[in-house]
Amino acid sequence: MACQSDYTCKIGPSILNSDLSILASECQRMLDSGADFLHLDVMDGHFVPNLTFGHPVVKCLRKKITSAFFDMHMMVANPERWIQNMADAGANQYTFHIEATEDPGQCIRKVREAGMKVGIGIKPGTSVDVVMPYVEDVDMVLVMTVEPGFGGQKFMEDMMPKVKALRAKFRSLDIEVDGGLSPTTIDKAAEAGANMIVSGSAVVGSDDPRLVINKMRNCVQDVIQRSQVER
Amino acid sequence: MACQSDYTCKIGPSILNSDLSILASECQRMLDSGADFLHLDVMDGHFVPNLTFGHPVVKCLRKKITSAFFDMHMMVANPERWIQNMADAGANQYTFHIEATEDPGQCIRKVREAGMKVGIGIKPGTSVDVVMPYVEDVDMVLVMTVEPGFGGQKFMEDMMPKVKALRAKFRSLDIEVDGGLSPTTIDKAAEAGANMIVSGSAVVGSDDPRLVINKMRNCVQDVIQRSQVER
Repeated sequence: MACQSDYTCKIGPSILNSDLSILASECQRMLDSGADFLHLDVMDGHFVPNLTFGHPVVKCLRKKITSAFFDMHMMVANPERWIQNMADAGANQYTFHIEATEDPGQCIRKVREAGMKVGIGIKPGTSVDVVMPYVEDVDMVLVMTVEPGFGGQKFMEDMMPKVKALRAKFRSLDIEVDGGLSPTTIDKAAEAGANMIVSGSAVVGSDDPRLVINKMRNCVQDVIQRSQVER
Repeated sequence: MACQSDYTCKIGPSILNSDLSILASECQRMLDSGADFLHLDVMDGHFVPNLTFGHPVVKCLRKKITSAFFDMHMMVANPERWIQNMADAGANQYTFHIEATEDPGQCIRKVREAGMKVGIGIKPGTSVDVVMPYVEDVDMVLVMTVEPGFGGQKFMEDMMPKVKALRAKFRSLDIEVDGGLSPTTIDKAAEAGANMIVSGSAVVGSDDPRLVINKMRNCVQDVIQRSQVER
C-alpha cells in the first residue's frame, strides 16, 4: 500500500499567452478544464523586458473568479512595493524573485503579514544555494525553466538539478517549475521532484486544455506515487 | 455663418476604472456609447505608483476592437522603451510624459518613425513653458488635470491657464485634458480651449454613458462654435 504523499500535484496555467482582453473568461476556461490554480504573470518592464498587468487587473479578475487560488508571479523590481496591493486585490500567494530584493527575509515577513502564502523564485542564472537559507520560511520555491519575461520558450532541462537538490532536502515543499512545460517535457520535471506545474502555451493554446492538463497531472502523480512506494 | 472649426471635439473614455478583466467588452461598450477614441492608461509602477497593463494587453484588445483610435497614455519611465511594441500592438497615438525622458525630441521622432501620432503630456507640477518648444512637432498636448496614477480624482481647475496658453498660440492643436472631467467640470476645460476630453469614472461608472458623453461633447462644441463666430 502506498503511503500518503508528502506533496500533491497541482497544475496552474499561465495566462500570459491567452487573450488578455477577455482575461476573466480565459481564466474560467482554464478552471473549467481542470486547472488547480492560476499562475498570473506580473511584469513591470524593469525586472524583465515586458509589461503585462498589475493589481488593478487582478482586483477586477477576483470579482469574477471568486474561489480559485491566485499564484502571483511578481516579475517586478522592488517586489515589496506591491505586497499590500496584491493582498487587497485578492491574491493568495505572492511569489517574488530573490534577485529583485536586497532583503528576502523582510519580503517574506511582509507577505505573511499581508495574509498571503509566500513563494520565492530563482532565474536560470541563479544558483539554488542562494535560496536554500529561505526555504523553511516559504510555502513554495519557483525554479524558472526559461528566462522570465515571455511565453512560448523552450524548457531548460539543465535546471532540473536545482529541483532535485530542493526535493532531496524538503520532502513536503511545493516546488514549482515555469517555462516550456508541456506533455513532452513534464516527465523531466516530475522525475526531478517538481509538483506545481506552470504551463502556458501548451495549455492555453490547446484545442483540448483538459487533456493536456490531465496528461501532465498523471505524469507527476505517477512519479509521486512511485517515490512513496520506494521509500 | 460660423466658420469651419480649426479643431473638433473628441471624447475618449479612460478605461482605468472599468472592469479590466473584461477589457474588450468594456471598450466596446464605450464605443457603442459614442466614444470618439479610447484613452488607454499604461502605468509601470515607476513613473507613477500604480501598475496597470502594457502592450501584450493592447495587442489582444486590438484583435477584438479593430477600428477604434487607441490613444496610449504612457505613464512609464523610459517611454522610448515601448514605442515599437505599442506600434506593433496596434496603437494609433503614443502619448508620453515630458518628465519621463531626457530627450523629448528624439522620443517624438521615434514615435513618428514607428508610424504613430505623437502626444506629449505634462503633469500638474510641470510648467506649460517646458512643452512649448515641442508643440509644433506633435499632434497633441495632454495637460493633466490630476496627478497621474489613479482614477476618480478631483479636477484641478488651476491647470486651465496652461490650456489657455496653448490654445492662444496653436489654433488647430489637439489639446487633451485628463483627470476629473465630468459634465460638472467640462465647461471650465471647454472655455479654456481643450478639445480632446478624457473622462474615466464619470463615463464608465455611469448608468447612461451615452448621455454623459453627449453632455460633454455638446458643451465643448458650443464653445468651439462660439469662438469661431467671434473671430
